[in-house]
Amino acid sequence: MNGFAPEISNQYVVDLDKHVFHSWSVQESAPPIAIASAQGCSLWDFEGKQYLDFSSQLVNTNIGHQHPKVIDAIKAQAETLVTIAPATANVTRGEAAKRILDRAPDHFKKVFFTNAGADANENAIRMARQFTGRDKVLSAYRSYHGNTGSAIAATGDFRRVPNEYSRGHVHFFNPYLYRTEFNAQTEQQECERALQHLKRVIECEGPNAIAAIILETIPGTAGFLLPPEGYLQGVRELATEHGIQLIFDEVMVGFGRTGRWFAFEHFNVVPDLITFAKGVNSGYVPAGGVVISEPISEYFKSNFFMGGLTYSGHPLAMSAIVATLDAMEEEGIVRYADEVGNNILGPALIELMEKHETIGDIRGKGMFWALELVESRATREPLSNSKIASMKSKFAEKGLLTFIVNNRIHVAPPLIIKPNEIAQGVAIISQVLAEFD
Amino acid sequence: MNGFAPEISNQYVVDLDKHVFHSWSVQESAPPIAIASAQGCSLWDFEGKQYLDFSSQLVNTNIGHQHPKVIDAIKAQAETLVTIAPATANVTRGEAAKRILDRAPDHFKKVFFTNAGADANENAIRMARQFTGRDKVLSAYRSYHGNTGSAIAATGDFRRVPNEYSRGHVHFFNPYLYRTEFNAQTEQQECERALQHLKRVIECEGPNAIAAIILETIPGTAGFLLPPEGYLQGVRELATEHGIQLIFDEVMVGFGRTGRWFAFEHFNVVPDLITFAKGVNSGYVPAGGVVISEPISEYFKSNFFMGGLTYSGHPLAMSAIVATLDAMEEEGIVRYADEVGNNILGPALIELMEKHETIGDIRGKGMFWALELVESRATREPLSNSKIASMKSKFAEKGLLTFIVNNRIHVAPPLIIKPNEIAQGVAIISQVLAEFD
Ligand SMILES: Cc1ncc(COP(=O)(O)O)c(C=O)c1O
Ligand SMILES: Cc1ncc(COP(=O)(O)O)c(C=O)c1O
Repeated sequence: MNGFAPEISNQYVVDLDKHVFHSWSVQESAPPIAIASAQGCSLWDFEGKQYLDFSSQLVNTNIGHQHPKVIDAIKAQAETLVTIAPATANVTRGEAAKRILDRAPDHFKKVFFTNAGADANENAIRMARQFTGRDKVLSAYRSYHGNTGSAIAATGDFRRVPNEYSRGHVHFFNPYLYRTEFNAQTEQQECERALQHLKRVIECEGPNAIAAIILETIPGTAGFLLPPEGYLQGVRELATEHGIQLIFDEVMVGFGRTGRWFAFEHFNVVPDLITFAKGVNSGYVPAGGVVISEPISEYFKSNFFMGGLTYSGHPLAMSAIVATLDAMEEEGIVRYADEVGNNILGPALIELMEKHETIGDIRGKGMFWALELVESRATREPLSNSKIASMKSKFAEKGLLTFIVNNRIHVAPPLIIKPNEIAQGVAIISQVLAEFD
Repeated sequence: MNGFAPEISNQYVVDLDKHVFHSWSVQESAPPIAIASAQGCSLWDFEGKQYLDFSSQLVNTNIGHQHPKVIDAIKAQAETLVTIAPATANVTRGEAAKRILDRAPDHFKKVFFTNAGADANENAIRMARQFTGRDKVLSAYRSYHGNTGSAIAATGDFRRVPNEYSRGHVHFFNPYLYRTEFNAQTEQQECERALQHLKRVIECEGPNAIAAIILETIPGTAGFLLPPEGYLQGVRELATEHGIQLIFDEVMVGFGRTGRWFAFEHFNVVPDLITFAKGVNSGYVPAGGVVISEPISEYFKSNFFMGGLTYSGHPLAMSAIVATLDAMEEEGIVRYADEVGNNILGPALIELMEKHETIGDIRGKGMFWALELVESRATREPLSNSKIASMKSKFAEKGLLTFIVNNRIHVAPPLIIKPNEIAQGVAIISQVLAEFD
């Protein structure tokens, strides 16, 4: 399959795109790439140029592009019942919730569905606040949890009042040895000091005022900051000690990305709430949600939940969840990501570090790796913005789609990527890096 | 078409639904209705019982259920390119933006797409704040703008800082003569006094601190509060005078609901930002967005926009927008809603008021009408919660799906509803109301 479509040119699509306002950008910066079609790990523009997807778009197409089983499920659901209000009982929604709960620890009893990652976190925080009757939320400086923050505050009706916690957000430093905030020399020191820091923040903010600690299990956009051994356990203990609800944001790392259904399985820690989106249905239809512990599920059996949205549990999104999770199971995609990610992708990238001085650090697990680019390994000074921008366009020229954040290349291909595709992408990275060493 | 599916029972679906956590509710209240399939204005459960949709679900299925052209477009898009990152140029997204701009005044130049209504408002507010460099947002007490309010505040990375306006929300009273806050006797008095009140709030909050006034053009969930003649013009003048951006939330009333593409067309007023969702694609795939004025579009050509989301301009959602707007145009659905809504639905409901003492007030336009139910017309005391709850279940028993908010029945059927279906639904309302007079 390719997208060669003689009647439509790339230029036509780029011109049409002038009507569209884009996320997180200056609107008149570099013109966007026009994509006509996709399959597996490949994408094509309207003139037949092929791209290799080394980022799963925004780390969401975990099962690759255009998986036939998921496409068929979406089409079948569209024909049966494309949309329905959230207050009804819907069979596809029930099946989706069941499949997610089947993959989570027993401790979890219900799933609340949202449209994406931001509103998943909104509602997890809301649940923790209502459940604890507390206000404050602690989260890490190096984190990304979504772009919402005003709609309920703008709302005038009674639904605003129980959600008005606007001053309750406090941030702390999470562990990150390569750029330590704690003068640590080892992972163990970084872990101990980061936990001591968090403990002090909790004490100073008032443990009884804190509803939740929300953490990306492995911070993704921040550069795949693998927490040191013992850190998440330490956070869990602090949370439990003070009756604080622990929320793991698994929006980017959940559903196979790190070679496990959930990234927290690597750390032997169970949170109170799990938030998800992206990989749950590979983003084929917008969906996200919250997996809810037994105590919180019990609480809301008799207490009114003060949140909601028009498209909670949208059937089309649910059909894509059911089909995606079934296909991942049947095709052993999570195990494949674990093996091929750790045995082929990871080693190939680590080898790059031996060749290229520009790489200061590399971190990863399964199908998610971050290359930290520096001006000098000695000073660790991040590679300059202008070099990063020129690098980005060189990748695109050579047909590689990457996810570049600050001074880092995030390598996060679809979990189904083949060894030869890995080799091809890594070779392009090597060629481009060579120009910057 | 009906949903009779011998292999699945209603009970099976309701049991499966125990895995699902529901919006805005006590989780163990009345069991939800199981819906198997739908067509036009009808829905069926798994045992063949038929329901008439008198609320367009949550006022979103404006073109009715399972419109074949929209279903076909979704299927075709799923086969071509089901998902793609927002940073690319996508032909369906460009077509969707163009169609929305074609229906808006010339003054509007770009469309930013979101997943739903809440994040549409989030981003409109964000644009107004960045554009003005101001902080505060004014909105009405009688309003609903969505359920988000924490994710960007929880976020730790740099994207939080320019979005941290948590204390900037101020509420004012909007006009509503039936339950006036201003001791008004006439619509004209209500209008003048509500404008004077808003003027005083602006003065007291500091005009130069106010980024935006956000208003539902016609407040929907609050009970279809048709603004009195001159009110929106007055707000527009106040906004313009102080360089405040005016946002009209058209999530519920936009795209044909009131017999116009946008509800503000009734009032001869143009806002700076329009937010939309629901009717834009009848909710067949989650979508919402912001229509952006020329000055704001110009500003962001060279300034970084501090917002975004993974599924902005999701192709599947975009395909449903293109097909929905084309079908509405081809089939004259907006004009139909205007004529049939005002000449058949409205008069039939107004007639009900003559028969039933329980109806204290009725307001509406096109295909959106609110019946305000009272214990007594003299005192205007709202009908009690217990009576409302029992009424709701009687409607469901008789096969009518309604949208009941507080003491009001909101009648908002699909815009394509036929006169005989209107008669049928109004007759059920009349039967049930008779038990409460
Ligand atoms: C960890 C994490 N949480 C939340 C989000 C927000 O998700 P969305 O863009 O779907 O709202 C993201 C998006 O990248 C994310 O990586
Ligand atoms: C006027 C208005 N704005 C915003 C929203 C929020 O939309 P959503 O539920 O899609 O987030 C609604 C929902 O009913 C609404 O009626």
